[in-house]
Amino acid sequence: MENFEFYVPTKIVFGKKTEEKIGEILKKDGIKKVLLVYGREAIKKIGLYDRVVDSLKEAGIEFVEHSGVKPNPVLSHTREGIKKAKEHQVSAVLAVGGGSVIDEGKVIAIGAKTEKDIWKFFKREEVIEDALPIYTILTLAATGSEMNGFAVITNEETKEKLNISSVYIFPRVSILNPELTYTVSPQYQAYAAVDAIAHIIEFYFTCKVCPNLQNRIAESLIKNIIETTEIILKEPNNYQARAEFMWAATLALNGLTRTGVGGGLFPNHMIAHALGGIYDLPHGACLSIVIPAWMDWYKDKNRVQFERFAKEIFGVSTVDKGIEMFKNWFSKIGAPVSLKEVNIEESEIPTIVENAYNIAKIWKIENIYTKEILEDILKRAV
Amino acid sequence: MENFEFYVPTKIVFGKKTEEKIGEILKKDGIKKVLLVYGREAIKKIGLYDRVVDSLKEAGIEFVEHSGVKPNPVLSHTREGIKKAKEHQVSAVLAVGGGSVIDEGKVIAIGAKTEKDIWKFFKREEVIEDALPIYTILTLAATGSEMNGFAVITNEETKEKLNISSVYIFPRVSILNPELTYTVSPQYQAYAAVDAIAHIIEFYFTCKVCPNLQNRIAESLIKNIIETTEIILKEPNNYQARAEFMWAATLALNGLTRTGVGGGLFPNHMIAHALGGIYDLPHGACLSIVIPAWMDWYKDKNRVQFERFAKEIFGVSTVDKGIEMFKNWFSKIGAPVSLKEVNIEESEIPTIVENAYNIAKIWKIENIYTKEILEDILKRAV
Repeated sequence: MENFEFYVPTKIVFGKKTEEKIGEILKKDGIKKVLLVYGREAIKKIGLYDRVVDSLKEAGIEFVEHSGVKPNPVLSHTREGIKKAKEHQVSAVLAVGGGSVIDEGKVIAIGAKTEKDIWKFFKREEVIEDALPIYTILTLAATGSEMNGFAVITNEETKEKLNISSVYIFPRVSILNPELTYTVSPQYQAYAAVDAIAHIIEFYFTCKVCPNLQNRIAESLIKNIIETTEIILKEPNNYQARAEFMWAATLALNGLTRTGVGGGLFPNHMIAHALGGIYDLPHGACLSIVIPAWMDWYKDKNRVQFERFAKEIFGVSTVDKGIEMFKNWFSKIGAPVSLKEVNIEESEIPTIVENAYNIAKIWKIENIYTKEILEDILKRAV
Repeated sequence: MENFEFYVPTKIVFGKKTEEKIGEILKKDGIKKVLLVYGREAIKKIGLYDRVVDSLKEAGIEFVEHSGVKPNPVLSHTREGIKKAKEHQVSAVLAVGGGSVIDEGKVIAIGAKTEKDIWKFFKREEVIEDALPIYTILTLAATGSEMNGFAVITNEETKEKLNISSVYIFPRVSILNPELTYTVSPQYQAYAAVDAIAHIIEFYFTCKVCPNLQNRIAESLIKNIIETTEIILKEPNNYQARAEFMWAATLALNGLTRTGVGGGLFPNHMIAHALGGIYDLPHGACLSIVIPAWMDWYKDKNRVQFERFAKEIFGVSTVDKGIEMFKNWFSKIGAPVSLKEVNIEESEIPTIVENAYNIAKIWKIENIYTKEILEDILKRAV
């Protein structure tokens, strides 16, 4: 095993009705006023907004609203949130929603504690040194943002979709009630499954050391995500399946699967972020297009893992058959597996390559993911 | 899944030479003076003591020594440590050793911050409200104490071996260097394996809800512990096996496997603690005696899990065959599976029952584990 550090200070409060505890949790932590970050109407439709507000009021927690977070959260709206957080001198951020809402909430939490331009942190020109405490109530299990130190924002002007990573943006407490995900549509459940699996395989396939222990944990999570997604697509209100999926998606990117394996360049996310940044497509859809293409390109670089994947996940004996089964499964659940399916022409590949290469440079992996290689991968996704 | 909370604020620093970072880690946290808790000669023989002291001195951290912790750490020695911690006004505890050293260190950390009698916390007559920060350097992977809020101490006078649980005694940082476990003897490696597996099966077999997700993670850990123990017994200096074992043993009791399953009464530990309290036997040896007997007694109460265990872990199709294979594996690695093997006569069962029943009362499960039932279980271990 490679040396590693593992530190996940987020407290998870998981289960039915747990959202009703939010006021009490904030009060116990000495929080007086929060910025309540959410999307549009979804949390109001399911009555969650009212339950959260009631809980806050009961605990005497003041709140200022910052709503309208978009599915691919954008920089301009994040800046508005930062302004509001400063103006009202909130002492914490409470993000109620999916990964996008949480990510924007995290970035606002950083912005509220600095006079530096927030985008500089994404360009790696500044280092994050502080943030407001972050609390979350999750309504879409997928990104793992509820239990990690990552956030992704899109700069609409430059069409850059970039990420940050910091120990300061681990949520302090994340509330996970599987019932709040009952209304996630079949399409978004499919994207969520792709995203969660993607987080696991970025490490699983790029491992330098590939211990049985981490392999087994990764495979346990992947099997579970596949299995529960199939149940959820048939029975959206199956608590057990929603619960297992939710917890598996959280564990998929809380650091557990990457411990000691080395690797983890996140190439699939890099290319998917390029697609997301340019075309504003759902993140999971970008990933399901990129992954089979990347796997086909990468398979000979870690053949043992690919053989293991084929056998353990799909019970087949060849690498190519494993990739094919995986791709077919994406199609089966309703996730696109080609650029064509989302109306992107082959002629646009150079534009995507440029955008992805920009991310590769920021991540300092442009020597591995050259423009030629990015083009090669994308051509396999036509 | 049952509702649950998951909070594991310990930072793990894992890998080769990581013990050399201890001074720097303490300094960064503003610690000026520590109580250095350890056992006898083991850490000096492998040069670890010198490396730790060098690191402390280099970082300008003062230290007061508290050595001589016994394998089943005892109350009288713990009290001495508390006295020393207060006298020298240390600002943290640094425990260098196995689970016993860490456990005694944790209890000293509590004792240093209270005027209450420390044993009252074990008898559940007082509630833990504070503790000094705890840092650990692990030399024997087994108990999981390096990443949880538990500690076990034996009161030599009353022959009570009792546990405490508190969020205040999660180590702040735990350093895990697998190389430091190279000198663990085959016998203690066997006991360590039994202990780590025991932590998993206490939840696995007593689950109220038994989700595939948690089952798969539990089975991944058990398989890994079995596999790596067999390698370690043949090749004590196999880094990869020592590393996987070490991390698996840590994950076995950091809360991961119990998330959402309910259950977790720890009956095997309860009876094993009785044996340990009375006869001062190694904890792992007590567990390997108790587990097959308890499984035989319990098997019909959660038959599906027992069938699953037999199939997944040993590839056999009947519950009894699974238990038999498990018991044989204990024997094979050198762990006792009967009271006779450790020279305890059947006539002593009433004494063991009394001691275990005392723990059952403290844990408030004496209505489930009555004296008759405890006797029934122990008779199966003769």
